[in-house]
Amino acid sequence: MSAEPISMTTLRRLPLYLQYMREVRGLGSEYVSATVMAEALGVHHTQVRQDLDCVGVAGLPKKGHPLEKAIFAVEEFLGWNNQSSAFLIGAGNLGRALVGYKHFEQVGIKVLAAFDNDGRKAGMKICGIDVLPISKFVDLVQRMHINIAILAVPPSAAEETVERIVESGIKAVWNFIPVTLKLPQSVIVENVNLFSGFAVLSHKLKIVLESKEISHGHVPVNA
Amino acid sequence: MSAEPISMTTLRRLPLYLQYMREVRGLGSEYVSATVMAEALGVHHTQVRQDLDCVGVAGLPKKGHPLEKAIFAVEEFLGWNNQSSAFLIGAGNLGRALVGYKHFEQVGIKVLAAFDNDGRKAGMKICGIDVLPISKFVDLVQRMHINIAILAVPPSAAEETVERIVESGIKAVWNFIPVTLKLPQSVIVENVNLFSGFAVLSHKLKIVLESKEISHGHVPVNA
Repeated sequence: MSAEPISMTTLRRLPLYLQYMREVRGLGSEYVSATVMAEALGVHHTQVRQDLDCVGVAGLPKKGHPLEKAIFAVEEFLGWNNQSSAFLIGAGNLGRALVGYKHFEQVGIKVLAAFDNDGRKAGMKICGIDVLPISKFVDLVQRMHINIAILAVPPSAAEETVERIVESGIKAVWNFIPVTLKLPQSVIVENVNLFSGFAVLSHKLKIVLESKEISHGHVPVNA
Repeated sequence: MSAEPISMTTLRRLPLYLQYMREVRGLGSEYVSATVMAEALGVHHTQVRQDLDCVGVAGLPKKGHPLEKAIFAVEEFLGWNNQSSAFLIGAGNLGRALVGYKHFEQVGIKVLAAFDNDGRKAGMKICGIDVLPISKFVDLVQRMHINIAILAVPPSAAEETVERIVESGIKAVWNFIPVTLKLPQSVIVENVNLFSGFAVLSHKLKIVLESKEISHGHVPVNA
């Protein structure tokens, strides 16, 4: 089933739906309206219906999508019902923020250990997770069959870290550092560029501010 | 010029090009090849050329795009040559990680102060930025004409924070917390969902692992 083609943009939207639907469930609802969800998330309602269709959830006329079913279907589709074990590399502020992120386990990520090249951090715990010296990384990845590394080191440590990742045989890297990693094609990489979103934000803001300067007119920005 | 329509997906890619081009500049190059950049970033080369066209940078045959010109054009287009002042709300690990992010100032964001509802944090500094009590937020936004708030509070503090944002008249919110904010249409919101990327990563990994189980065949994952 998972080999079916699904667009990357749909994949990126599914976690947003999941977050919203879990919020609505918390309020005691049994159904979720695609139109209301679309509006709250700033996505077109046709798109929402199409995306939910992709994971096999259909809405009922006048009622909406059955909430429990829809949440389960999205979780199942994303594989987030089966926890994936991961290692975190970099136990600084960013690493701490990531493992401290409340929703981390909800998406099926279990961070088993953190690694840092600062020897003074070894033996510490961040949010209940042991910090180990980076020298133990390769051996532990192999012995524990870890597939995923979460990268949160400073940019200056990127090159050295990439070498260890390649040596370890890690299959997938979730990269939070703003550096283009030189990894073999066989390693799956997902780069989180925090500033992609800021580009959209600052562009919209610029339009609003300029239009106010010129005309005091109104520009719809959340369209 | 900024009122020209540009797609949101192009906007999101521009910071990636900028990061890559700055890296190449650091290595002493004068030109950047759209084909090489496309490959490094996992974007189609036609797309890269088209995006750079949007900001008014053309490539030279056999040489590529002039690097300094291209970097300046993208920065200018994004408005990142003019620093935007912003306030950070939430001085926990995530907030610290954000202001500690080396490239923050490179994208033209100047965080002037951080606010926290934990009174014990008031008076502290994070990465050189003063932490103030949240009770001062509304007044300071108005007196200092701040347009942008960066939101990094725990989800439980979202509702209260939204109230203060609305009261303050902040125009744009860069939201790092996994909660759907209830803000008026007139406020620009950019939600950073850290897990969107993980959906793509875990989906690709699932395909690779399943294909190995079944056939030991090869699946191109970075296509």
